[in-house]
This record gives sequence, structure tokens and C-alpha cells, in this order.
Amino acid sequence: MIYLTRKEHFNAAHKLYNPNWSKEKNEEVFGKCANANWHGHNFNIYVTVKGTPNPETGFVMDLKELSRLIKKHVVEELDHKNINLDVPWMKGLMASTENIAIEIWKRLAPEIEKYNCKLHSIKLYETENNFVEYFGD
Amino acid sequence: MIYLTRKEHFNAAHKLYNPNWSKEKNEEVFGKCANANWHGHNFNIYVTVKGTPNPETGFVMDLKELSRLIKKHVVEELDHKNINLDVPWMKGLMASTENIAIEIWKRLAPEIEKYNCKLHSIKLYETENNFVEYFGD
Amino acid sequence: MIYLTRKEHFNAAHKLYNPNWSKEKNEEVFGKCANANWHGHNFNIYVTVKGTPNPETGFVMDLKELSRLIKKHVVEELDHKNINLDVPWMKGLMASTENIAIEIWKRLAPEIEKYNCKLHSIKLYETENNFVEYFGD
Amino acid sequence: MIYLTRKEHFNAAHKLYNPNWSKEKNEEVFGKCANANWHGHNFNIYVTVKGTPNPETGFVMDLKELSRLIKKHVVEELDHKNINLDVPWMKGLMASTENIAIEIWKRLAPEIEKYNCKLHSIKLYETENNFVEYFGD
Amino acid sequence: MIYLTRKEHFNAAHKLYNPNWSKEKNEEVFGKCANANWHGHNFNIYVTVKGTPNPETGFVMDLKELSRLIKKHVVEELDHKNINLDVPWMKGLMASTENIAIEIWKRLAPEIEKYNCKLHSIKLYETENNFVEYFGD
Amino acid sequence: MIYLTRKEHFNAAHKLYNPNWSKEKNEEVFGKCANANWHGHNFNIYVTVKGTPNPETGFVMDLKELSRLIKKHVVEELDHKNINLDVPWMKGLMASTENIAIEIWKRLAPEIEKYNCKLHSIKLYETENNFVEYFGD
Repeated sequence: MIYLTRKEHFNAAHKLYNPNWSKEKNEEVFGKCANANWHGHNFNIYVTVKGTPNPETGFVMDLKELSRLIKKHVVEELDHKNINLDVPWMKGLMASTENIAIEIWKRLAPEIEKYNCKLHSIKLYETENNFVEYFGD
Repeated sequence: MIYLTRKEHFNAAHKLYNPNWSKEKNEEVFGKCANANWHGHNFNIYVTVKGTPNPETGFVMDLKELSRLIKKHVVEELDHKNINLDVPWMKGLMASTENIAIEIWKRLAPEIEKYNCKLHSIKLYETENNFVEYFGD
Repeated sequence: MIYLTRKEHFNAAHKLYNPNWSKEKNEEVFGKCANANWHGHNFNIYVTVKGTPNPETGFVMDLKELSRLIKKHVVEELDHKNINLDVPWMKGLMASTENIAIEIWKRLAPEIEKYNCKLHSIKLYETENNFVEYFGD
Repeated sequence: MIYLTRKEHFNAAHKLYNPNWSKEKNEEVFGKCANANWHGHNFNIYVTVKGTPNPETGFVMDLKELSRLIKKHVVEELDHKNINLDVPWMKGLMASTENIAIEIWKRLAPEIEKYNCKLHSIKLYETENNFVEYFGD
Repeated sequence: MIYLTRKEHFNAAHKLYNPNWSKEKNEEVFGKCANANWHGHNFNIYVTVKGTPNPETGFVMDLKELSRLIKKHVVEELDHKNINLDVPWMKGLMASTENIAIEIWKRLAPEIEKYNCKLHSIKLYETENNFVEYFGD
Repeated sequence: MIYLTRKEHFNAAHKLYNPNWSKEKNEEVFGKCANANWHGHNFNIYVTVKGTPNPETGFVMDLKELSRLIKKHVVEELDHKNINLDVPWMKGLMASTENIAIEIWKRLAPEIEKYNCKLHSIKLYETENNFVEYFGD
């Protein structure tokens, strides 16, 4: 078993705002992240898959394919978008890095399994100082 | 003459949209950057000042003071903000990295001169692949 | 279960010197790291906690709180300090990166548990080429 | 148990080419990586060992020794070399990052065990966007 | 006048070998870089242009266009290539980072001038520790 | 004219303390940097030389020689040292990054001139957020 990772990135706007709370409570809990007019980040995503190298290629998975899947199912959905407004599969969820990573897992895991390997983790950086990692359970 | 640089950062939303143009022309020229619902970045800013070290301190300028000035005049104005909507001194200007850097220069240059040194450059990273530098003329 | 990481940093002096050994044996074992007059590093620390996102906030733990805890219990104790001389909880221990990481774990683990999640790891970089990671057992 | 990591690097040429396949099939599968006249990378390698700190030194393993082992068994073998042509222990294997990492594990694991600790992982970066990690099984 | 920079990268093989010298003299002067079977690098290139922002766009130059030019005239020519064997415009020149940067300048400068701005510098990293910068004279 | 840069690093202890001032004034001016028992940093140094590439080598200067000079005249003098106590050529000077860079220039400039090129700048990083650059006048 060997673990293969591909990094991609996207730039997006979001805010942290719970519609069930007052403006005051949102500002108390989320501080600057609740700014009504949004803020944004350069998100970096590391997708790790695991499997056994194919003896004919030496590959766990073709990196060009892995990159293509991430671009199709993650980057095209999120890049230069507003995560709260423009992304159907984030509707009804807080736009936290934790929740974005979990939803990305759900979208990528079945795609990766078509390639004779498994999704191992989604590591999502909101800034270079803050990141989350999700292993699917 | 020695050059001293301090890095700070801020996270903001913006879009590139010329209100004198049609939606179609904006999308043709600015592509994904014209997304109506905004996108965002982790901006990194490097402020460079120049002067002669003070023999008693060894400093061109106290870095704590330089950091305080950047935080007051740049970070507090832009961090977790929408550059198009929330920043009075960007009103009427395209929210390009070029224009943000020029306006930051105008705000910081007179503050730096109070400290017996001069502002040399504003280097502003929109992403790790794209940045501008401005020297004041 | 999702894993959330916050990076902070501190700059400190230390030396590697076993008081039960001769100066010669210390220099033989620790080389330049035994320099009598100390040397120092920019330490980077990554603190990872794990838990389930709160549905109301989307957070495993509020990053502002995690940052505050690391600053209070780690950075204020170590930043611009001499780890051998100025840090009571390192007295009697070799000031190796391994031991600093273990002692940081002991200080942070009970604080993190007050926030409905668990400390997962302390990753401590002494230089960009050398780092340790500790998982508490 | 604590985990200690040392980073080293090497610059090498390689190509991905399966000699049992036609030129056309190689180009179809490996794309630009099959270029007949080779291409190359700055590889970064992170070697992680695990063990218990020695109370007299505070060390899991002396980093100078870990660095010396990586330089002797990995860097001197691969740096400024052609991985397909110049490295006897890669003969007959596809020169993929996966296979290089596995072969490095086989070379380093028995050396590390002489130092009262165990090899935990080999993490090998081919570019800053692509890397593999191997844990020995 | 404002300076705008775009980063791109390419992975290539090369060697340093003067055909007018003996094998021994090449090895004496170039050391490991003269390895007959080549070695390689992940090259990073920063292209800086200078001009005045267009008031309608806020741009010195459209970064999509700058990226397209670098990809067409630099990356497609060098990526996954052997700089000594596969690149017509490097024939007869030593494949040093200095010479690659100078030849890239010659190829890009006339293209940039079509966009109402000027090429300012080519900064080429061979490794993170070694780079050159060329300003055209 | 082309500019060639080599990066090296050293880890050192220092403090900022003016012996002509009271302890109180030192703490007021230098804050935590005046800590009596020292603190330290991982310093990164970028040395840039300028000249014309030699047609036989393609080099402005042999990077192995440039690296050797920096190691001999800078790294061996400062690495794992206390800049205030262990470095004769810093005696009587405040141990600020500015002054360290100026003294490094004085030591390296005459050495570089023996190689048919000129020293262009010394760029010295104290942390990734703070650095100085000196051009010799």
C-alpha cells in the first residue's frame, strides 16, 4: 500500500453566518468571519489516494487522471465562486473549512474508487496557518 | 542605505467589474474574476523601507512600529473585508492588485516618513503565482 | 471525526548539554549544538485537534480559541526565551525538540479537552529540515 | 513513542517508459513523461523514524546520523544521476515516484534499526504538487 | 510605473558539458553536473513586466495573457524536455541557468511589447537555493 | 550583466541590548528582544553577485565556489554561535539584522571580486516576516 497526493488550489469568497442567529450573535461567535459583504481565501487542497503500484506503470493512480478529477469535481465547482451562494452542494451548511472538506470527500470518494484505489484523505488549507484533514469517518 | 522589509497578510473578497461595461464585456475581459457573487484571496504584503541604521539601536526602523503601521493603515482596513464594497479609499477604482498596491503606497508613505526613513516599495501577492510591486512613481 | 490544525511560531535560544557529562563528551555527542554561549531557532508549531463539527458553527473548535490557547500556554512561555534557563517546565530535561514537544503536549492536552475535542498531535519544526511529531503515547 | 523527520534533496533525470510497450502506447499512457531524451526533477525526501527519546540526550536518534545515512544510501546514489540508467537498484523497475520511495525504504529500514529506533515512513516529493508516502507494507 | 510578476514552472533534464574540453576537464569544472546521462530540475520562472495600469481594467497587463505567453514561448518549449538535446534555441550554448534565462528574455521581450508594457526581468530558479535574474542588458 | 544568487542558512542566538542604557530603557526600546538570557533565529542569507557569463562555462561564477565562500566567511563564523559573544567582528555593534548584513557585505565583497564578478546584495532573513537587504552603500 502506497499513498499518493496531488495538490490543487482555488480562490473563493465565503462568510460564516448562521441564519438562525441574530446579527449580534453571529458577530460574537464568528468575529470578522461574519462580515456581511464576504471575505475570501486562496484555498489549497491535497487529495491523497492509496493503493498498490501497477507493475506496468509504476503508478498507484495516473496523476493526470487524479488532477483531472480534482479539477472537475472540486476546482470547477469552487474556484472564483462564493461558497455560500454559488455552490449547490454547500447549501444549508455552514461554509467552514471542516464542512467544505467533508463535502469534497463525498464527491471525490466514489470517483477515485473507479481507478482501483481508495481515497485516503482530504487536506484543505484555508490559510497557511489553518487547515483541516478528513479521512472519511 | 539599508532596506528593511516586513510581511503582513489579509484575507479579502473582491471582483473585477467595470460598471461602464455590459455584463458580457466584463465576463469577456475579466473571465472568472468578474463572478457577480465575488471571490477572494489570502493577500500577502511586503512593505520595504530604506534608511541608515541608528547607531544606538542598529535599526533602520523599529519593526514593531513598522508592523503596527501596516496593521493600522492596511490590515485593519482590508482584512475580512470586501474590497469593492467595504473600503472607502478603493471606491471608484477597479479592485485590481495593481490599484490596491498604489493606494496602499499613498496611505503608508507619509506615515513612514515620520520615522526618519522612506518607503521604498509595496509588494502585494494576490496568489503565490501573481504579484505586483510599486515604487511610488 | 475531523482534524483541525493551527500553526504558531516562537523564536528561542537553547543548547544541548548534559550536565552529568564532561565538556568533551558533550561536544563529541552534540557537536555545534553544545556551544556554551547558546544558539537559537525560529520554531514552528502545528497543533492538531480532532472532533466532530458542531452543526451550528461548522467548527470542530473555534480557531480563535485554539490560537489563544497555544499563545498562552506555549508562545508566551517560550518566545524570545532561553529554553534551558527561562522555562520552569523544561528544568532538568535536555532541551531537545523531542522533549519540548512532549512537554507542550502535557500542557495543552487538558486545555483542549475543555472544548469538546481532543488533542491529536504536536508537530514541532526546529528548522525546515528537522521536525518531530508527538501523539501523546 | 515520538516521530522524528529529516528532509534531504536530490536532483535527477528520469523517464517513464515501459520497454514491453510500443512507443505509441508509452506516449499515450505517460504523455510528456515518456520523452525519449529524459526530463528531471528536484526531489525532496522526508525520512521519518520513531522511537523513545534517550534520557541522556533527549534524542530519538541523532539527526547528524540520520542525515548521514540518508546522504549515503539515498542522495549519493541518486543526486545528479539518471534514475533509469545510473542506479543499479532501480533496474527493471518503472522509475515512478512510487517505486523510488519503496526502494529507498528497503535500503534505509535495516540501517535505521541499528540505532534503537524504527523507520516509520518515506515521503518523496517529485514536485511541490505531487508526492508519495510509503510506510513499509 | 508598476511591476507585475507571473510565476510558471517546467521540469527538464540537462547537463553541463563543454564539447571542446576533455571528459576529465568537464568533470573537474562541472563536477556532478557533468554526469553523462543527465540530471534534472524543477525550474521555477518569474516573469516581471512593467507599465501603467489601464484605468478601465486596473491592469498593467492581463495576467491570463501573460501566463499564456510564458506557457507558449517557454513552458511548451522546455517542459519535460532535455535542454541540451530537445531545444533548438539552446543549441551551441552551455545549458547553464544564466544562458537559459538570457534566451528566454530574447524570446519573451518582443511578445510583451505588443501589450503596451515592457519586459522588466526574468528570474529563473534551478533549485530553491540557486537562481539567476536578468534585466536585458 | 546577469545576477546570480545563492541561499545558505545559519542558526544563532543574539539579543538586542545597548550597554550604554539602563535595563529599563533597553526593555522599553527592544521589548522581548532584550531578554537577558538571549533568544535565537534560523537566519537565511541570499548572496547575489553580478557579472557576464563566461562563454566556456555559461557561469557568472561557479556556484560551488560561491557556496564555499559563504560557508567559510559567514556560516562557519555564525552558525550555532551567539552573535553578541562569539563573533569578533560584531563586537561593539548592536546585533541587529541590519548590522549583521552590513558586516557580512564587508567580509564577502573582496572575496567575490577575485572571481571576475561583483557582489550585488546581501539579503538576510531573521524570520520569514522580517528581512533586510544591503547593496554596499
